[in-house]
Amino acid sequence: MKGAAYVGQGRLETVTVDVAPPGPGELQIAVAYCGLCGTDLHIAHGDMDARVRTPLVFGHETSGTVAAVGAGVEGWAVGDPLTVMPLSWDGTCAACLAGHQHICQNLVFVGIDSPGGLQQRWNVPASLAVALPPGLDLRTAALVEPVAVAVHDVRRSELQVGDHAVVLGGGPIGVLIAGVARDAGAHVLMAETDAARRSRIAELGFPVVDPSAIDVPAEVERWTGGVGADVVFEVSGAAAAARSTTALARVRGTIVIVAIHAAAREIDLQRVFWRELRLLGARVYQRSDFDRAVDLLRQGRIPVDALVSHVVALEETAAAMDELAAGRAMKVLVDVAGQVRA
Amino acid sequence: MKGAAYVGQGRLETVTVDVAPPGPGELQIAVAYCGLCGTDLHIAHGDMDARVRTPLVFGHETSGTVAAVGAGVEGWAVGDPLTVMPLSWDGTCAACLAGHQHICQNLVFVGIDSPGGLQQRWNVPASLAVALPPGLDLRTAALVEPVAVAVHDVRRSELQVGDHAVVLGGGPIGVLIAGVARDAGAHVLMAETDAARRSRIAELGFPVVDPSAIDVPAEVERWTGGVGADVVFEVSGAAAAARSTTALARVRGTIVIVAIHAAAREIDLQRVFWRELRLLGARVYQRSDFDRAVDLLRQGRIPVDALVSHVVALEETAAAMDELAAGRAMKVLVDVAGQVRA
Ligand SMILES: [Zn+2]
Ligand SMILES: [Zn+2]
Repeated sequence: MKGAAYVGQGRLETVTVDVAPPGPGELQIAVAYCGLCGTDLHIAHGDMDARVRTPLVFGHETSGTVAAVGAGVEGWAVGDPLTVMPLSWDGTCAACLAGHQHICQNLVFVGIDSPGGLQQRWNVPASLAVALPPGLDLRTAALVEPVAVAVHDVRRSELQVGDHAVVLGGGPIGVLIAGVARDAGAHVLMAETDAARRSRIAELGFPVVDPSAIDVPAEVERWTGGVGADVVFEVSGAAAAARSTTALARVRGTIVIVAIHAAAREIDLQRVFWRELRLLGARVYQRSDFDRAVDLLRQGRIPVDALVSHVVALEETAAAMDELAAGRAMKVLVDVAGQVRA
Repeated sequence: MKGAAYVGQGRLETVTVDVAPPGPGELQIAVAYCGLCGTDLHIAHGDMDARVRTPLVFGHETSGTVAAVGAGVEGWAVGDPLTVMPLSWDGTCAACLAGHQHICQNLVFVGIDSPGGLQQRWNVPASLAVALPPGLDLRTAALVEPVAVAVHDVRRSELQVGDHAVVLGGGPIGVLIAGVARDAGAHVLMAETDAARRSRIAELGFPVVDPSAIDVPAEVERWTGGVGADVVFEVSGAAAAARSTTALARVRGTIVIVAIHAAAREIDLQRVFWRELRLLGARVYQRSDFDRAVDLLRQGRIPVDALVSHVVALEETAAAMDELAAGRAMKVLVDVAGQVRA
């Protein structure tokens, strides 16, 4: 069987994977699709060499069917469609004991800290498997994981029907947050510097502005009749965007930090104080977010088709990562099983 | 009658105040005590010249008795003891309509934007008057306003019994927050750079560290058994303290920004994201905070006596402000009526 692996020193390779039978408590998955994301890019560029063990078969946005059932696993049969919630917690740290297992202080992220889904057969603890309902095709289901991120971010924000939400950054997660927020009844405005991404966002029906060309706070002021945004999602990772968040939010408004910020950012704490703002971190998802993402996708309520810019064969993973890095791709799906190209 | 006024160009003067009868809807107050705070210092130093109209009789931490009752005012009689909640809102802005009148976008802060309590007779809208219960003396009652700030900050934090709370900055508001948090059942650790303040804080029974001498994150890690603080109150206004907050808070912990930060501060957004932290602004108080502050002081549950370092006559206001500015005072009360010195 084939897989795609990060082999160290910034290099990706197609590798041959030995297929062991699933161990006790495991399911063996015939992987159908695996999406690529920014974290995978960080792995491929060597930014996470201190964390990953090579060779690493990466990938955590997956869909597939059950290929084999390990000893002691109940409720699953060969052929069942599924996705994987790629988090494994210790259950004993302070975060876990407080009910925040998804941000366990010793979290194992499957596909980063253990082998991921870019392989044709993949053994996974059955506890991480999430059943897919009839009517949700496997290609769409590969987007459950990023949609779950967006669901988690919107849930953290406590966004209400009729709220005005600004999304800073129009990559896949930004667009999915916008989609989930709109589905929840919010008015959504997006800001994105890349013209190609802005075109795609506009096609999805979202008003979108270029923060490098216009005064976003003034635009949000106008858009909200002088009130300010109820919720601001910072998804860009840019210092200027982070700095602008406090100027966009209304009195008692909420700012959600979704992006990775590699360095400390300047934040206007006087504005945080003056308007009694709330700034929240939001990371990955809880099981309820995953279940909600499955539901939203099954019901066709999130415009994911327009998000997928590339579907590539497993052997084309490295080339697709280059497209991602160059900003020429939105969401890339790897056709791991080979239905399309093999 | 006498008053203390900021007359512009960084100068304070004792002034003669004309005593008009209270207008319709007003109470005339015979002011007993008026506390001085950091905001008053900003006014006196000219930092708020763009906002205030001179001459300004300032002061907003007041206690007194009713001297005269204006037309149409019910429920008050001459001699009734009272304090004043010095906020006046428009009732029509987005903040007010959302129920956040205390941070009205057009808030009038009495004693800054209109005449305050450093005068022997003071006419105030009866709607701002807060009755004092039997058993709360007027000297202690002058501390209701700063205690209400502390009550509001602790309420915003959603602190729970048994929580570990760190208070960065040991001035009057920091100490009052520590007192309110301890009264609410929290374990409290304070950090303060000034040795004299640390001595006073230690006498109040709070563990206190010097952030210029020790590694506060390591100390909090040790103090909480590796978990981190449930709540961090940033009351110092210092850049380094603001920067440290994210290193002190536990997973899903809360950081409350209480201090004025004159410039944007570096905040570790990666840590905010990674631990799903919550950073909240907290400003002034709501009526329920004021009522709670009255209750706490009447029951003797907050160690305010130890906080009052100076009680001075009205004519000594300027000199007392110099003591405050030099860091040689904790809480200064002006004996406006002159019982002590006159
Ligand atoms: Zn854990
Ligand atoms: Zn208002």
